[in-house]
Amino acid sequence: MADLPSTVSIREVGPRDGLQNEAPVPTDDKVRLIDALSQTGVKRIEAVSFVHPKAIPQMADADEVWSRVAKNPLVSYSALIPNSRGAQRALAAGFREIEVVVSASDTHNRKNVNRATAESLDDIAELIPMLHEAGATVEVIISTAFGCPYEGDVAPRRVADIVDRVLADGADRIAFGDTTGMGTPRRVRELVSLARDRQPDAPLLLHFHNTRGTALANILTALELGITEYDAAVGGLGGCPYAPGATGNVATEEVVHMLHDMGIDTGIDLDALISVAEMAQQMVGKELPSGVLRAGPRTRLTTLS
Amino acid sequence: MADLPSTVSIREVGPRDGLQNEAPVPTDDKVRLIDALSQTGVKRIEAVSFVHPKAIPQMADADEVWSRVAKNPLVSYSALIPNSRGAQRALAAGFREIEVVVSASDTHNRKNVNRATAESLDDIAELIPMLHEAGATVEVIISTAFGCPYEGDVAPRRVADIVDRVLADGADRIAFGDTTGMGTPRRVRELVSLARDRQPDAPLLLHFHNTRGTALANILTALELGITEYDAAVGGLGGCPYAPGATGNVATEEVVHMLHDMGIDTGIDLDALISVAEMAQQMVGKELPSGVLRAGPRTRLTTLS
Repeated sequence: MADLPSTVSIREVGPRDGLQNEAPVPTDDKVRLIDALSQTGVKRIEAVSFVHPKAIPQMADADEVWSRVAKNPLVSYSALIPNSRGAQRALAAGFREIEVVVSASDTHNRKNVNRATAESLDDIAELIPMLHEAGATVEVIISTAFGCPYEGDVAPRRVADIVDRVLADGADRIAFGDTTGMGTPRRVRELVSLARDRQPDAPLLLHFHNTRGTALANILTALELGITEYDAAVGGLGGCPYAPGATGNVATEEVVHMLHDMGIDTGIDLDALISVAEMAQQMVGKELPSGVLRAGPRTRLTTLS
Repeated sequence: MADLPSTVSIREVGPRDGLQNEAPVPTDDKVRLIDALSQTGVKRIEAVSFVHPKAIPQMADADEVWSRVAKNPLVSYSALIPNSRGAQRALAAGFREIEVVVSASDTHNRKNVNRATAESLDDIAELIPMLHEAGATVEVIISTAFGCPYEGDVAPRRVADIVDRVLADGADRIAFGDTTGMGTPRRVRELVSLARDRQPDAPLLLHFHNTRGTALANILTALELGITEYDAAVGGLGGCPYAPGATGNVATEEVVHMLHDMGIDTGIDLDALISVAEMAQQMVGKELPSGVLRAGPRTRLTTLS
């Protein structure tokens, strides 16, 4: 594994992308979850989204959650916003790392926000300078990047064109979202290679769901292509309410477990992370889809009975 | 993916390794499962094991199951045996593809058969010529090859030494069993590389459990090393009764789904296989841990509501 990266940066998205797609949990629990995560060594946490409470009631208390979080100066916290109203709320709350999202697939984008992809890109082009003026960085998450549940395959060129467009409009970072777990090693290799060829210097993060079991194989493929930034959700929290059949994000502890065994550093304390996964599982009141949570890490031995 | 194999051979182990580690199902169901699998295009099926019914009641009806299976001439059926008594039963039943098993870890081997690894290797050395004389081929499955739940890491050299030994004793084929899902891409690379260096021509099959989410990443790693034979169990049936915390075999449909999307042929009809996974799920009466069973393949699109 000599040519793999030696360190990887994981953004923990359980509090936002995870809890947004579970039954609502109390504000107290959200704060507890974020605070516990911030003590695991993870450097980046997607904390909340500032969306309309009627659209996503799970995030209606975003302002209160964030006001009560014990901010760890070693952690960068980010917020997702859907529009300029959300941007104003996020900035007023003090966030300076902002994510916006657009679907590569028109059908998925219309289903989410009732607009074509091109219309959302125009909106993003207006949001970016406004956010920059306020001192924030902007990451554009391109969802359905590895396939759309309504349209099927999404041409890598279409995604790469969106990358070109948003970088020209000033985006600081790009994320590819495997919204409904349609990514496979082949799709990852095709899209990441093309995007890297066209934009070798753009910070690029990958966000996989483990819907069809391929998440860690996808990450392995991306590691071989030099990608060092990944989203993951503690316990495998979350899914996608607009995407039937989708299960949760890849579990952070499964990613960390595999990476550490491969000698790749994440800065995260795996045992502490598994404890947080147990906490998350209690919060949502159901078994979460994380093998490392269920079985423990490979280093946790069984005593002879 | 230019340097990956273009075809892969999958051995379906759901009827044996899968059902042996689930609550017992009726004989009729076992026959139905094997027969349904034999119509999916899969070329190899591990059908039964001839073990003592007190030790493993799930396989007590092995003779009856096998006598009632509608043998498909395009399918090779194999049986696992623990000892010479099992060998005689398997030969009498007509099997000519026989598997024997030994744990690379002494502690695991003692826990299973109350003997040290070296003692089991001596037994296997006696079994092989007896089976060869009867016209059967012998595959030696080396379990805990990627780690032992009692001892932890298993040195690749120890496993490679066992490979050398059993090949010298006449074994026709080798399998590495990831009995409790301790395999990671790193462990796969280390062990497979060493075994290939020492025995480049020995047929080698890999058997992964998805206990910690790494099974498809492990297979991807092995594909890059040129390995073309894998075990998998429909629906992800099975686990290991001697290994607490272990979940099932990697689901055949998850393997086939990933391989086909990567342009790797398996000869298996994925839709037919998913139908068999649904049947298996009904037989065991619980949700099986297969994402492709739950969500469908990535090509199964959602209709706009």
